[in-house]
Parts: sequence; structure tokens; C-alpha cells
Amino acid sequence: MHDSPFVNDVPAEEATAAWRRARAEAGCPERIPEAVVPVGDAVGRVTARPIWASRSSPVGDVAAMDGIAVRAADTHGASETAPLHLKADSYRVVDTGDPMPDGLDAVVMREHVHYAPPGDVAELLAAVPPYQHVRSIGEDVSAGELLLPEGHRLRPVDVAAAAAAGATELTVRRPPKVAVIPTGDEIVPIGSPPRHGEILDTNSLMLLAQAREVGCEAWAAPIQPDDAEIIGAAVRDAAAAADLVLLVAGSSAGRDDHTARVVAAAGSLAVHGVAVRPGHPVVLGTAGSTPVIGVPGYPVSAALTFDIFAAPLLAELEGAPPPHRPQVTARLTRKLPSVLGMDDWVRVRLGSVGGQIVATPLPRGAGVLTSLVRADGLLVVPSAVEGHRAGARVPVELLRRLPEIERTIVAIGSHDLVLDLAATALRAADPTLTLMSSNVGSLGGLVALRDGLCHVAGSHLLHPATGEYTLPYLDEMLPDRKPAVVRLVHREQGLLVPPGNPNGITGLADLAGGGLSYVNRQRGAGTRMLLDHELRGLEIDPAAVAGYAREEPTHLAVAAAVAAGRADCGLGIMAAARAFGLDFVPVAREPYDLVLDEESLDDPMLAPLWELLGSADFRASVEALGGYGTEETGHRIR
Amino acid sequence: MHDSPFVNDVPAEEATAAWRRARAEAGCPERIPEAVVPVGDAVGRVTARPIWASRSSPVGDVAAMDGIAVRAADTHGASETAPLHLKADSYRVVDTGDPMPDGLDAVVMREHVHYAPPGDVAELLAAVPPYQHVRSIGEDVSAGELLLPEGHRLRPVDVAAAAAAGATELTVRRPPKVAVIPTGDEIVPIGSPPRHGEILDTNSLMLLAQAREVGCEAWAAPIQPDDAEIIGAAVRDAAAAADLVLLVAGSSAGRDDHTARVVAAAGSLAVHGVAVRPGHPVVLGTAGSTPVIGVPGYPVSAALTFDIFAAPLLAELEGAPPPHRPQVTARLTRKLPSVLGMDDWVRVRLGSVGGQIVATPLPRGAGVLTSLVRADGLLVVPSAVEGHRAGARVPVELLRRLPEIERTIVAIGSHDLVLDLAATALRAADPTLTLMSSNVGSLGGLVALRDGLCHVAGSHLLHPATGEYTLPYLDEMLPDRKPAVVRLVHREQGLLVPPGNPNGITGLADLAGGGLSYVNRQRGAGTRMLLDHELRGLEIDPAAVAGYAREEPTHLAVAAAVAAGRADCGLGIMAAARAFGLDFVPVAREPYDLVLDEESLDDPMLAPLWELLGSADFRASVEALGGYGTEETGHRIR
Repeated sequence: MHDSPFVNDVPAEEATAAWRRARAEAGCPERIPEAVVPVGDAVGRVTARPIWASRSSPVGDVAAMDGIAVRAADTHGASETAPLHLKADSYRVVDTGDPMPDGLDAVVMREHVHYAPPGDVAELLAAVPPYQHVRSIGEDVSAGELLLPEGHRLRPVDVAAAAAAGATELTVRRPPKVAVIPTGDEIVPIGSPPRHGEILDTNSLMLLAQAREVGCEAWAAPIQPDDAEIIGAAVRDAAAAADLVLLVAGSSAGRDDHTARVVAAAGSLAVHGVAVRPGHPVVLGTAGSTPVIGVPGYPVSAALTFDIFAAPLLAELEGAPPPHRPQVTARLTRKLPSVLGMDDWVRVRLGSVGGQIVATPLPRGAGVLTSLVRADGLLVVPSAVEGHRAGARVPVELLRRLPEIERTIVAIGSHDLVLDLAATALRAADPTLTLMSSNVGSLGGLVALRDGLCHVAGSHLLHPATGEYTLPYLDEMLPDRKPAVVRLVHREQGLLVPPGNPNGITGLADLAGGGLSYVNRQRGAGTRMLLDHELRGLEIDPAAVAGYAREEPTHLAVAAAVAAGRADCGLGIMAAARAFGLDFVPVAREPYDLVLDEESLDDPMLAPLWELLGSADFRASVEALGGYGTEETGHRIR
Repeated sequence: MHDSPFVNDVPAEEATAAWRRARAEAGCPERIPEAVVPVGDAVGRVTARPIWASRSSPVGDVAAMDGIAVRAADTHGASETAPLHLKADSYRVVDTGDPMPDGLDAVVMREHVHYAPPGDVAELLAAVPPYQHVRSIGEDVSAGELLLPEGHRLRPVDVAAAAAAGATELTVRRPPKVAVIPTGDEIVPIGSPPRHGEILDTNSLMLLAQAREVGCEAWAAPIQPDDAEIIGAAVRDAAAAADLVLLVAGSSAGRDDHTARVVAAAGSLAVHGVAVRPGHPVVLGTAGSTPVIGVPGYPVSAALTFDIFAAPLLAELEGAPPPHRPQVTARLTRKLPSVLGMDDWVRVRLGSVGGQIVATPLPRGAGVLTSLVRADGLLVVPSAVEGHRAGARVPVELLRRLPEIERTIVAIGSHDLVLDLAATALRAADPTLTLMSSNVGSLGGLVALRDGLCHVAGSHLLHPATGEYTLPYLDEMLPDRKPAVVRLVHREQGLLVPPGNPNGITGLADLAGGGLSYVNRQRGAGTRMLLDHELRGLEIDPAAVAGYAREEPTHLAVAAAVAAGRADCGLGIMAAARAFGLDFVPVAREPYDLVLDEESLDDPMLAPLWELLGSADFRASVEALGGYGTEETGHRIR
């Protein structure tokens, strides 16, 4: 063990520099060794030496057209009025690519040659200049020319050109070798359903795939128990075989201490904690002369740690430029708070509304891997910035390609499974089209529509005074707009209760006693409005409902809470009950509508959505979810 | 054979549509079959079905921190002034990820717990709200939730999230299968040096690599002779096994007729010739129910045919969005003529000068594969546009990443091998730095510098009146600028003559008789100016020099022409003679300088270049080229 000092909770740049110093001190190689490989195997590899052409291409002057090779000087004076005749011994028929015959220096295209009697006399109607339709020796590349420098990642055209310039083998960096070591007593391999408290080893799967995606050879060790001696031995073994070791902490926030001690014992500890969110319990160090990263166990942290620390190092070891993602400027659809002192890597969904890219922040927990799955971009809020206001213009690194983002129907508002079903049907029919729905509740959707941040807003907002849904809010919230409303579905709302309805719940009236615990939806959600309306009708004080203050963002989250036994019931749709095998006590039938600007009805990007809503197949699949009525699906109701 | 009508020399879009109709008529599948693969093997594949979560993650409520699990209600009233004590039976120690014990609903962080005597009594200094530091069941994903739609190319995070949501296998499209059939009597396999008139099969190498790069399984048939029967049989065999057949024509321009006949006989011919340059003899059709592309034999045409026709079809077969490259707007450094009626795919080099991206067109021949190797971008001049003026702003598809383009030293002007040597040394030291040199002659370089289109101009421009080099031109050409001049090298110019100097040439005076053929450099090249100056001194009329009108763009091209026996001699540098094993008859020693704006001397991007010019190692490697003097290398001479 080295006694090198390490730094704690420092900015990413400082961490990178400290790690670089530690690697240099530990004698870690600056570059991966060279390997000589056949040209065909060199694609994707990085040149370790410049490639100089060893022969010219073409190797000699060749015909660039099919026709006849002639001596240009022989053709002087030929014209339409004075055709010139060349005897068979003064020209030669050539195909494209044929070497130019000795003494001949130009080619006349096949189409421009006529043959005169006795049949082998070529008749020309125009003179030709020297070297017409001749490809010169070295036109593509001359012997001795620099074809490609060192440090170039070879593409298909590169190896083809290298082969044409005489190469049969190329000197490249061999692929970097990455060893992943999963640790933790609670971690179990993927394949069998984990028991409660066990965690699937999805991190190894992901890190291996990330390493392979950037061209590495990667392998994972078996899952190691929480024992410093055993983990230390695994690190030393891996370090002896790999160019980079990724030691994955268990899920525990305290495990990074463990990792730090193991790394310190195996070599040197350079960094313990980086001011990056999520992901800050990163450990950077060395084992022997091999770099080691202690990767946090939370999956988003793990993925970003690879991006921020592993991928740039691997590129450097190959002598190649670091990875890079294109950037765009986007408008934030919501306020985005951020803590000072940490670079905050926020995942965002992107769409293009009214010619502007809009970004909607996704959940920020380090455990919410789906936030990275659904992300179209990454937005870094630097440590010195406290966040951004809604509508702010921010730089975003793209995770999805711009044309796909521009072909995204942005739906913001209430959550309904029918939108998910529509998203997958639209994509199946047209791989370039995406329907992205962001769940902020019905009210939030109408606000987003007002602010030009979405194409459609999903709403089932009950107006207590009139008992009508959604329509009464439009004049109030969108006075300067001409909103159109298209019915998506009717749906049953009801109480989701454990299988067999053990408490014998019959309706919302049963909440009055205070003996049942409830799980609620967030403020602004249509389902919350429905609850409040019904409770008023039943003269039940919300404050008397146990769990009224506990908010979940979606129907499925409510169902999950009931399924987990965290609450006795919650209001939601039947499809959510089905997904979790719960029972369903009907409370109300409500319309769920899509609100949009009237002119958007003619937006060609939305046309497939309207077509889908009219299709019998789609309606049948909606009905099959349970609790839905499609008799008005696709009807414009305003 | 079907008798379907085919279309000839049509725009690319029309060709794509005609081919689509032909595929539908021939019963070609719209999508590749599904395959069920383990999650770990699914990265890079496209989902054939939506992925719905089959279990929630986390599967139950879990601790989000290390600490103790408590009942939030038990902590009411705790404060620094009124610490609260919890007995051992009313809390439980938990690690992050542990299931929440029954009845407990919040976690207090380890750091905030003190233990009071007898040691197992937890002391709290603050009350905690319910669900503090608890990750809810389904926080990441809820059972029944849509994780990913059909038609999504799976990334590492996607498979990790799918595994966390309960998947062990995924239904994806299997990789597309692509068969490449090289044809042509003159085509020989890579590996042995081809004889003159033979052509290496670099196209198969390239097309296989292109297909694999977009995720296909690809193989090549042996090279087929020019025999329609034999090729037809190979096409039928390949079509039976592959999802797409690439039939590569020999190099001959007439071979596409051959290919068209073979395709028509094997199935149906939809398109014969597309109005795209280079590449227009493309053939599109079907064999059985498999799509076939007749790929032109010229390598640039072959590469672009894959990009324009094969890659989008392969993406469509996988049900994924088509490939896409980011675009930028760039300023053209030169006039760019283009023929009407053809989409012209021009390869360009890019750099960033004075905050603007500048694009320099590369040679446009279909045989110049190095034009694609050196290209940083592709510029399509649409068929209705006759070209662009110098300085025009044009859209460019990026082939290299923007940060690398922005770290490119743009050198325009005279060609010298020392610049190539510098390019590779700079890259070896810093993989993010590129030195790109574009050869337009000394005069062209000074014009580019004047117009703000390059960082440095390489010049060895003789001023006949004074006998000085370069400096006298600066006041004349750059009157409003403060140009600085840094000496790169002194170099020998001389006559490049065949090995053994068979004509016994002793100097330029020997050109007087007219009996020797000469190969010249282009107008504006310093070497051309030197020749003219020397001829004037010798009182030789250029018109009397045989071959004076034949121009080559570089020293190496001149050497190649002499080596090919196309000329008896040409003026050039000694390194070029060495590259081609030629003899060298010295004529003059001249300085070769780099001209730049004075303020560019402090541009940090150029600093490594100045450092390199000062290094003894670099000077030694320059001297080793032969014919160079480095005694003033790196000196600022103005």
C-alpha cells in the first residue's frame, strides 16, 4: 500500500487530475500496447503508427472509361466535317481500369467511336487532348504519402484505402481490457427473481455493455461477498489482466468507504468522492500499475461514472480523442433547482414544439435507471449554478439523434396507459415517430400547453362547480388560444385494494372512519381532483383521511403502494389494478381527453395519432386493458 | 425473370421509391424476423416488441440510506434541546437497499444517530417525516409500465433497466444478413501485390466493414469471373441466405449493364442508374424475395452507395430510424462548380478559422478513395444547383466530431512532406489535435490566408525580380494584415529522373533541345514559379519544353509520373524522388515558410506546432527524409 494522499469530494476536473497524477506515480502505462493485425480486422481500432502509402493507386496510368486508347497527337484536326480514321494498329480497345498501352495517352469513350469499313478502322469526329479519360498513377494515393496519422480510429473507408495503398497489416492499439468486479452480499446474478432485499446485478451487465460499446474487451468476475480480503484479492487478480478495473460497490451508500479501503490496500487511493450528482461516491485509484475505479452501486451513478471517468481514460489509453456527444440548446419546461457545490447531471426528455427544442427534466434519483432510459439528453448544471427557471435556455448533450427528437409528439399532462399503448403502436408503424408522455398531472399539462411546451395535454380535470371535465378550464387557462379537444377514452376510476379486498371496502365512504390508510396522487392530478370532489360530496374532511398527504405521481405507483401493503387503498384506473393483481372497487366513469391548439390538428406529425385512434384494432387493444370505453375515442369534442 | 419496367438515371428519391415498389411486388419481407435473446446479448439490437415491466424496481420499499429505520410518528417532538430516545425494539439498523422492516416508515441517516447508554438506545435530535430516505416500491419502474417501445435500438442502460424490470430475455430483430459478391476478371484478393491492370478487392473489405458497423452479419463470396451465368448463380445463392445482396461491379463503367442484366434475370430490375455523383451506375432490384444492390466498382461510389441505399434499407428492415449524421454550416474556401441534374456528393475537409467552420472541397473523382478518408464532412450539391461561389455558406454532414474539427490547424498552400511529418507527430503527442494540410500551391495559400480561410499558409514563392522568397508577396497580397513568417525548412529542389538517370540529365538546360519530356506543376505552385524563373535565366522558351502543359498537383504526383515512364523528368523535392526510388539532379535550394497572422502566433492551438519545430527529434526526422536543411526551422523571419 502506498501512502499517497487522496482528495475528498472534489470537482470532477480536480478528481481527474489527481487520478492522472496517481496513475503516473504508480507507473500505469500511458498507452495500450501495439498489435499488428490484418487490415480486415483493423476497423474500429486506433492507429498506433502513421500509415504511409507503400504503393501508388492506381499503380500506373489506367483508362478511366471504356473505349479506345489513342495517341492524342494522332487525333489533331478531327471534326464532324472532317472525320479522322485510325487504323487498327494505332489504337487499342480498353475497358475502364485497363493499363494504358505503351505510347498511347488518351481515351475516346466507346459512345464516340464509330467503326468504318473494313470494320476495324475507328472513326473520330473530334480531336482529343492528351490524358483525356486517363487516371494517372497515384491519382488516389502516391507511394510515400501520409495516408493517416497515429491516433486515428479506423473506419471502413480507411482500411480499404490502406489496402489500396499497399497495406496488408496495420499497427494499431489492441482493444483495451476492462474487468468488472461486482460486490455485495445482497447482489444476486440476473436470471432468477430476486427476493425482497436482494438486488439484481444489473450494473455488471450495463458496465460490460458500456465497455464493449466503446470497443473494449470486457469481462465480469463473479459477485464478491462484502469481505475486504476477498475483494482485495479479486482486485489484484483483475489488475494483473486488465487495463482498467471497475470495482462495483454494493447498493449501500457506505460501501464506498469499503471500496476506498480496498483500493488503498491494493495500490493507491487518489480520490474518494467527486462533487458530481448523481454518482458522487466515486473512488479513483490504482492497483499495481492498473487504474481502478470504485463505481457507486446506484445504477444511474454507475452509468454516469463510466461516461465521466472510464470512457475518457479508455480513449486516452488508445491514443484517441475522447468521446463526445453533440449539443443543442433547449428550453426548460419546468423549474430546475440544483444544489450548489455539485455538478448536477440531469436527464431530460426532448421534443421540438413550435420550432424550439424543449427539455423536460426526468426524476433525478440515482436509483431511477429508467430516467436514463427515457432521457433524450443530459443537462449539466455546474456546481456554481443554483438551478434554472422554467423557460430558461440551457445546453443539452444529445443522447438521441436530432431528427428523432424532431419527430416526437410531446404529450404532457395526466398519465394514462392508453398513451403508452399509442406510443408503441405509432413506433411499430413508423420507426421514426415517437410519442413521449410526461406525467405532471392534468393541470400541469394545460399549463405546459399554454406555455408552448407540448403538442398535446392529456387531461381528465373535473370542474367541481359544473361536474364537467376539462372543458370549463380551457377558457380560464387558455383565453388567448383556440384549443381543440379530442376524446381519448372513457375510463373507470376506482379504489385499488389488495386481492380479495380484505377490508371489504365498498367505496370512498369507507374512508370516513379513519381506520383505512389511503395513498394519494399529487396536487394538480385529475384523480386528486376527483377524490376531493367525491369527498366533498360525502362530507368527509380530507384531513381525516389517513395517508391523504402521501403523494404518488402515477396510477401505477399508487397500485404499487397498495400491493406493497403500504396503504389499504388508493384511487386509480382499473388497468393499474390489473398490472399489480389488485382488486378494483369502481367509483366513477370519466372522460380522458387530449387538448391541443386547433392548428395542431393539421400538423402532419400528429396525423398518424388521429389515424390510430380511429382504428378498430387499437380500440380493441384498449378495451382489452380493462376499465376503458372507446365509443368516443378519436372524436373531436371541441 | 420478371418483366417489370425499370427506371434509368433518376433522382435518388425516385430510385428509392421505385425500388420499394419492386421489393413489395417481389414479396420482400418488410421486417427481419424476431429472435428471443438473453438480455446480455441484446445490446445494439432493435426491439421487435415493446418491453413492459414485469416487476417493479425496487420490488418493495427499501432504505435509501445507511442508518436506522424508525416509525416517523415515534420521532415527533425530537429536537436538539429535547433529544428523543428510541429503545432497541422500536428501530432497526438498515443499510441502503435493505427492505423497510414491517411497521417502520422512515430512515434516519447513520450520521445523525447517537447511541446513549446502555449502548443500544438511539438518540435523535430531530423529528423525521414519514418516508424520509425511503425508496418506494416502483420508484424506478412499476410493474405494467411501458419501458421501451418496439423499434428501439437497445443501449447498455436499456438492457440493465429491462433486467431490473424483470426481463431475462428480450424479443429483438436478429442482425440483418448482408452478402457481398465481388465480380470482375481484373479483381484480385487483398494480400499479394497486384500486377499492373489488376485491381485489389478493397471494395469487399470496405462493404463488409460498413455492414458490420451498422450491426449486420456480413460475408463475402469469392470473386466471380465476368460471366453472367456464374454471377447469376452466385446472386441466387446469396439471396437465399441473406437479407440484402451487394453485387459489386468490376471497375469498368460498362459493367453496370452486365450487373443490370444479371439482376433482371435473377428477379427484377427496378433502377438502372441514379442521378448521384459519384456513384450513378447504381443498380437496384430483387432476386427472389431478397433486395439486391448493384454497387459500382469505383470505391467512392461503392462507399456512398452503401450510405445512400443500403444503410437506410437495413435500418428499415430492423424497424429502426434511418442512420443520421449531424450537420453544420460551413464557408467554402474555394469555388465549387457542379453539374446540373445530379446530386453531387462532395467530400470536404473542415476546420474552424476565426470562429467559423471552413470547408475545403477534396478531389472529386469516384476513384479517389483518399478523398473520403480525408473528408471531415459531406456536402451535397442538389441536382438543381450549379455549384457554389468561394465563401458561400453551405450545409455539411459531419464525418468527424465537432470538437476535433475545432482542434484542427488548417494549413493551406504548398505541399511539403514535412507538414505530413508534423501532422503525425502532433497527433501522436495529443490525440485531439489535427494538422490538416490542403495543397493548392503557395499562391493559393496566401489567398486563403487573406480570406480568413486558414491558420497558416505554406509558401516557397520565388519573387523573380528580387530573387527573394515569399516576403515580397506579403505587402502586395496582404496589405491590411500583419503577417508573421516562420521558417519551416530549407529544401533542395531538383529534377526527378528515372533510376540511373538514363538520359544523363545534368540540369534544366537539358530541356532546351525539346528531346526530353517534362511533367510540370500547376499554376500558382512555387515549384512552377521556380521553373519559370530558371528557364528565363537559361533563355529557354517554356513552349519549347515538351510536357510543360501537363500539370500535377504535388511533388509526389510528379515523381509518380516519372516513375511510370510518362515523363523523363520533373522538378520536385528530394523526398519525393526517394519515395519513388528515383534519382535526383539538384537545381536550387529554397526556403519553405509558414505565413500566418501575427496574432495567431499566440493561438494556444498552434503552440504545440511551434514547440515541435524547436525539437531536436523532429529536426532529425526531417533531415532523415533527405534534401532538407533545418538550421532555421522554427525561426520567425518576419
